[in-house]
Formats: sequence, structure tokens, C-alpha cells
Amino acid sequence: MACVVNKHIVIIFFLLIILHSFYIIAHSKELDEKKPCKRFVLYYHNILFNGTNVANATSASITNTSKLGNFGHGMLVVFDDPLTKDNHLLSPPLARAQGFYFYDMKTEANAWFAYTLIFNSTEHKGTINIMGADMMGETTRDLSVVGGTGDFFMTRGIATFRTDVVQSFDYFRLEMDIKLYECY
Amino acid sequence: MACVVNKHIVIIFFLLIILHSFYIIAHSKELDEKKPCKRFVLYYHNILFNGTNVANATSASITNTSKLGNFGHGMLVVFDDPLTKDNHLLSPPLARAQGFYFYDMKTEANAWFAYTLIFNSTEHKGTINIMGADMMGETTRDLSVVGGTGDFFMTRGIATFRTDVVQSFDYFRLEMDIKLYECY
Amino acid sequence: MACVVNKHIVIIFFLLIILHSFYIIAHSKELDEKKPCKRFVLYYHNILFNGTNVANATSASITNTSKLGNFGHGMLVVFDDPLTKDNHLLSPPLARAQGFYFYDMKTEANAWFAYTLIFNSTEHKGTINIMGADMMGETTRDLSVVGGTGDFFMTRGIATFRTDVVQSFDYFRLEMDIKLYECY
Repeated sequence: MACVVNKHIVIIFFLLIILHSFYIIAHSKELDEKKPCKRFVLYYHNILFNGTNVANATSASITNTSKLGNFGHGMLVVFDDPLTKDNHLLSPPLARAQGFYFYDMKTEANAWFAYTLIFNSTEHKGTINIMGADMMGETTRDLSVVGGTGDFFMTRGIATFRTDVVQSFDYFRLEMDIKLYECY
Repeated sequence: MACVVNKHIVIIFFLLIILHSFYIIAHSKELDEKKPCKRFVLYYHNILFNGTNVANATSASITNTSKLGNFGHGMLVVFDDPLTKDNHLLSPPLARAQGFYFYDMKTEANAWFAYTLIFNSTEHKGTINIMGADMMGETTRDLSVVGGTGDFFMTRGIATFRTDVVQSFDYFRLEMDIKLYECY
Repeated sequence: MACVVNKHIVIIFFLLIILHSFYIIAHSKELDEKKPCKRFVLYYHNILFNGTNVANATSASITNTSKLGNFGHGMLVVFDDPLTKDNHLLSPPLARAQGFYFYDMKTEANAWFAYTLIFNSTEHKGTINIMGADMMGETTRDLSVVGGTGDFFMTRGIATFRTDVVQSFDYFRLEMDIKLYECY
């Protein structure tokens, strides 16, 4: 009789340990591309300095193009751009994006970005650091969220860019879909 | 009698498994902002090339300002700067910092850094890669440690900047408080 | 008799839990420098634009040297370079590398890189983001893989550079040994 009970206990514990393993493995690092632990969509507004728009401009090129091809290769732009919740430039900015981009291709327009999202509101305080290639020919393209501070302490993730509008040489707007997969 | 003993065993094992879970969860990724796995404070000395100080200079600007505002917007500086244990420029350097920064704001002084700490001593061999915004108006500001090699293999963390002194256009010193949260 | 059996069960479960702990700890984050979860070696070909080789060039400098020393300090190069499986420039490219490097030392040649590997083949689709110091005087040097997208979702690792050939001012080739330690 005692031995029968023990066998049941053995089986129950086996199951418990197996369940427990699955739980630990599942929770130790849950990195399902479809399930970010935090997500928000921001609109990035870039108003390039053209020599006369100091009042409005939030970015400026600091190098000339390299003359390698006709797609701006080598033009490096330093920016401190507002990010809004919707696609209206004059909406209250939720964050700022500080960093740079440059054009790097000879045969088509293609950019490379490295920048910091700076949050300083009652809702969020902290920064998110991002870098990667902006393959402008693609509808959406993914860059890497490589770190964060403050409310975004040690985060990592993906920033998906989508061109919202390119109005002129001086103004373009990107949708940035920030998906964080490591939240602490 | 046997059944009574078994019940105790069941309870003991339940407790063991629960304790075990806490242990695993606590140790699987210990990321308490107050408990870095490694920490050191370094002083970063930046001596800018002014055209005549080749012997002392460790950095130089490679672009002119963009004329967007009066805070150096667009000036990009490439550096190979010494890092010392204390705030004396002539103390033996513990590491070097190679990378760049640029000023990115129209309305105040604000910089953006990306660089590598290079250690090559008997104590440490390896590199630590850092990027982020340096909001110079804040007393302290956090950048991201995004990777490491050698003794700092695969590390991540936070680099907290504090302006120690700005002596002149040519020389400033930052305290860099490096806190690593992933150590392998 | 029942008590004897129970003691054995207790011991067995203790062993199971201990084994289980080792298993979880070993698998929760396996970061053995010698055991990347993915690895590939690529050859990076850099053909610098010299003013006349538009057809072949894949990179161009966008700043002049800073005149701090004689090792090109301050020259910043933007590239969109092919990567091949072997060291032949004309082999079919497996990926492209888009980003920049600059020279940062006064007393010897030393570079700093930040770039994205872009894969767009039947075998791999996605990007890998890399940054770090290229201490050209060392036989091999390690940079950080700080993130990835697509097939390389959220990856991290080490990129080891080895200079394969420096043919002239216009052409050099690096072996890039990409070792990934976080694969999802």
C-alpha cells in the first residue's frame, strides 16, 4: 500500500519538475518577436537647415556629399528632432531624438542612423539608444535598440522605420515603431 | 503511518521547488540597478587640437559647426583620450577612449558620444563599447554600455557621465562611472 | 519498510533538483567564448573613391584629416561594401556592410567602425549591427555585435577583424569572423 502511494508521488514530482522546467525556460528570456514587453509608435520629424530656416530647423548637414553617385552619398546630418504621438509636426513632442544619419549608397538612396530617444515627461524619464541601416527602398526596415537608461534601464529591442512622408528636401517624417523585448 | 510521512515529504518538496524557483529567477538575470556586477570610475581627459598643440592634443574636430544656433551644433570631434584613476591628467592612464562626439543642439550645449574604452594592462585586457546622449545641462547623465570584448566579453551596462571641469575650449574632463550588469 | 523507501525517494529528488538546477543554469545563458551559437567568416572589400574610380568605388571619405599626426587622424569614410565568402573581390557577395569608419590616432594607424551587415539572400535575411575599435596594429581585434534583426533577431556577439591585405590607398580587405552568442 505504501509503495503504491510512493509511486504516485514519484510521478507527481516528475510532472512538477518538468512543468517547472518549462516555466523557467519560458520565463527566463521570453523573446517572441510578436510579443514585445513594451511597444510604442512615434513620429519623427526632420526639418533640415537650409541656410535660412534657423527658427524651424532641427537638423543640419555637416559634410558635403562625396560625389560618389547621385544619391547624397556622404552627406552626414546631425539632428535634435521632436517625436510626436501622431503625425502632426506641431503636436506636443513626447520625446526627442538626438543623433545622426548619413547617406551611404552610390546607386540608390539609403541611410544609416545612430541616435538616442530622450524621454523627459511625467510619463517616462530615460533614454533609448538605437543604431542600424535605414534601407529607404523597403516599406519597413528594422534597426536595433541596443540599450537604455532610466525607465528603459538595460532594454533591447527593434525599431521599425516606415517613411510617412517626404515633403521636400527640407522635411521628412518617419514612423518609428519601437518594440522592446527586454524590460527590467 | 506511511501516508502521514508521505504528506510531509510532499510539503517539503513543494517548498523546495518554490525556493528553487526563486533562486533560479533571482540568479538567471540579476539586474538590480543598484547592484552592478562590476564597477569602476575613470576620468576622461579631452585635449582638443587648436592648431598649435600637436604634442599635447588627443582629439581634433573634423567638421565645422553647422551655424544652426550658437552651441557648436555640428562640430564633430574624433578622440583618442587617456583615462585615469583620479582627476590628474598626468596620472598613469588605465585605459584609452577612442571614438567621437558631436554637438547636436541649437538652443543649448549638448553632445552625443560613441566610443570604445580600450584596456591593455596587466589588470585588464579588453574593450567596452559605449554610446548615447550626453545632456551636458544635467549633473549626471547615463549612456549605454552596449558590448564588450576580452575581459569584458559580452558585457552590458550603464556609463554615467559627470562634468568634472571645463577649463577652456581646449580641455575638459569627465568623470565616467562605468557600471556593468552583465558579467560573464 | 515504507520509511526506507521514502528516504530513497528523498535522495532521488534531491539529486533531480540539483541536476535540474545545473541544467537550467547551463542553458539559461550559455556564454562560452569558445562556443558561439552561430559563426561565419566573411571578407570585407573596401574600394575607396579616389576621384576617378566611380564605377568600382564602394566607399568615400567625407572629411579631411585633422592634421593631428601623420596617420590620417580624422578622415571619416562612409562605405557600402560587399562581403564575400572567400577573399576574391569578384566572388558573389553574401552580404553588404553599410556604415562608416574613421582614423583616430596621432601616433599610429587605428580606426573605429560602426556598421550594419545586410543579408538579403535565400539563405539569410536580416541585419547585424556592429561597433568598436579596430586596433590595426594587432593581428586580430574584437568589436561588439550589439544587435540584429530578421534572421538575426536580437543577436549579440563578437566580430573579430584580421587584416587580409592592404593593396594600396584605394583597396584593403579585412577578414571578419562573426561569432554570435545569443541566438533566438
